[in-house]
Amino acid sequence: MALERVSSNKAFGGDLIKFKFKSESLGGLDANFNVYLPPEAKQTSVPVLIYLAGLTCTEDTGAQKGGFLRDASAEGIAIIFPDTSPRGAGIDGEDADWDFGTGAGFYLDATASKWSKYYNMYSHITAELPEVIKESGLPIDWSKKSIFGHSMGGHGALTIYLESLKTNSPFLSASAFAPISNPIKAPWGEKAFKGYLSGGLEEAKSKYDATEAITKAKGPLKILVDSGTSDNFYKQKQLLPENLIAAAKSAGHSEADVNIRIRDGYDHSYYFISTFAPEHIQYHAKILKA
Amino acid sequence: MALERVSSNKAFGGDLIKFKFKSESLGGLDANFNVYLPPEAKQTSVPVLIYLAGLTCTEDTGAQKGGFLRDASAEGIAIIFPDTSPRGAGIDGEDADWDFGTGAGFYLDATASKWSKYYNMYSHITAELPEVIKESGLPIDWSKKSIFGHSMGGHGALTIYLESLKTNSPFLSASAFAPISNPIKAPWGEKAFKGYLSGGLEEAKSKYDATEAITKAKGPLKILVDSGTSDNFYKQKQLLPENLIAAAKSAGHSEADVNIRIRDGYDHSYYFISTFAPEHIQYHAKILKA
Repeated sequence: MALERVSSNKAFGGDLIKFKFKSESLGGLDANFNVYLPPEAKQTSVPVLIYLAGLTCTEDTGAQKGGFLRDASAEGIAIIFPDTSPRGAGIDGEDADWDFGTGAGFYLDATASKWSKYYNMYSHITAELPEVIKESGLPIDWSKKSIFGHSMGGHGALTIYLESLKTNSPFLSASAFAPISNPIKAPWGEKAFKGYLSGGLEEAKSKYDATEAITKAKGPLKILVDSGTSDNFYKQKQLLPENLIAAAKSAGHSEADVNIRIRDGYDHSYYFISTFAPEHIQYHAKILKA
Repeated sequence: MALERVSSNKAFGGDLIKFKFKSESLGGLDANFNVYLPPEAKQTSVPVLIYLAGLTCTEDTGAQKGGFLRDASAEGIAIIFPDTSPRGAGIDGEDADWDFGTGAGFYLDATASKWSKYYNMYSHITAELPEVIKESGLPIDWSKKSIFGHSMGGHGALTIYLESLKTNSPFLSASAFAPISNPIKAPWGEKAFKGYLSGGLEEAKSKYDATEAITKAKGPLKILVDSGTSDNFYKQKQLLPENLIAAAKSAGHSEADVNIRIRDGYDHSYYFISTFAPEHIQYHAKILKA
């Protein structure tokens, strides 16, 4: 699983480096990711944030449009930007829709036989990427890791964080911009889960739904969410942040531990993300460097 | 010349709005531009920066990837993001090359008959856009205007600034990221000028070359430039910042007035631009709000 360096760009005194490697979890296909290393990484291992992008995006979207690097540099935090799905699996129907298949891996491990060889973004993100990055010797302190994401990637960040709390290698915090907060009750999630999972929504309920998971999670949690009122997908009830708020409250999590802010007038775009990017990076940095 | 509002995104408390209109200077074609209005613009007219993007870019590139909006919001400055050429003129050969024709208007007024109906980005930027924006009533104080850009857009910013000093409506400052500093001596510039201008390089020399223009400009100038040593186009001698430095020095402009920094390890990408974006916005803000 040797990493091949594809490109490198100096940014904010550090380096944004693109790698690719043959991914076992993605059926042997080439997988790309970007990693931002802040200036501190030249001297020492640094804490790390994983950023999960949304539908149709790639490993470049967050790096180019998120506005994350400036504060990551100032705080001395690395950021890993994975892709959003396998690429080129060649499965029939894979490229038919923008919200399923290519660009829409939903950060799960597929169990439906049609998809299960390639569509394993959950294992790719949680196990394979950390492993290959450790092997490569990049100066990252994996005992200090947090995760964040946008839309489908916000769903991924919240569910991966909550699931990790059951393990001996938990993420220390999670944040999300306009996450799909209750996907088993949203059209995007229903379509994805019925397609990728042999057990459909019932299988998803136990592992891939943040609103379900938060009711069972042991606190104190460290979750920050921003979601905008002018977000068309919010209006279409794809995001359902109210369900996550209600579930967190009924499970007894405090508003400080699960801090979900509904932002007036903001939409689903990277203009919205970049507006709150500094706060999200600083939120994680405070926890990661505590 | 009524403006049609195409879209609007809230960002950093202000609004990024896309407009289109029938552009006379671009032969009656639809022209798009984005404008960022900071929160202050809800109460009062604000100073304005025009951002000119580089080859292959559009009105969206700088808005999405430049990292400019955060400081524009904090400083209370509007930014106008024009496109880089007319679109869809239908001229034979217009789309054959990435460095000429569509996406490569070079911020000049074409005089070669093949191009002169449509390729008039100089007039579009300096006269038409301010006029239609004034007519629209957007809260911009045109007595406080500066200009900046990247690569081909850096060339545009510097030449438009220097030319404006001869008029009674000067830009107050100019800055550039990796500008094409002496295009009459660079392959990109030679190709563009020989194509667009009936008088070729000789015609370009008098109006569209920053290194030529700076020798004749009356100071004190207000110019800031950053250019990176790992920029492949710098290595290919497309940018020639040394020629601009030498010309400024021999013309007696101080290093404070024409501040050109060669940045170790930075390349031509928006990762480079976003790194120095805060300094550029703050540089202009100090002058615009003085």
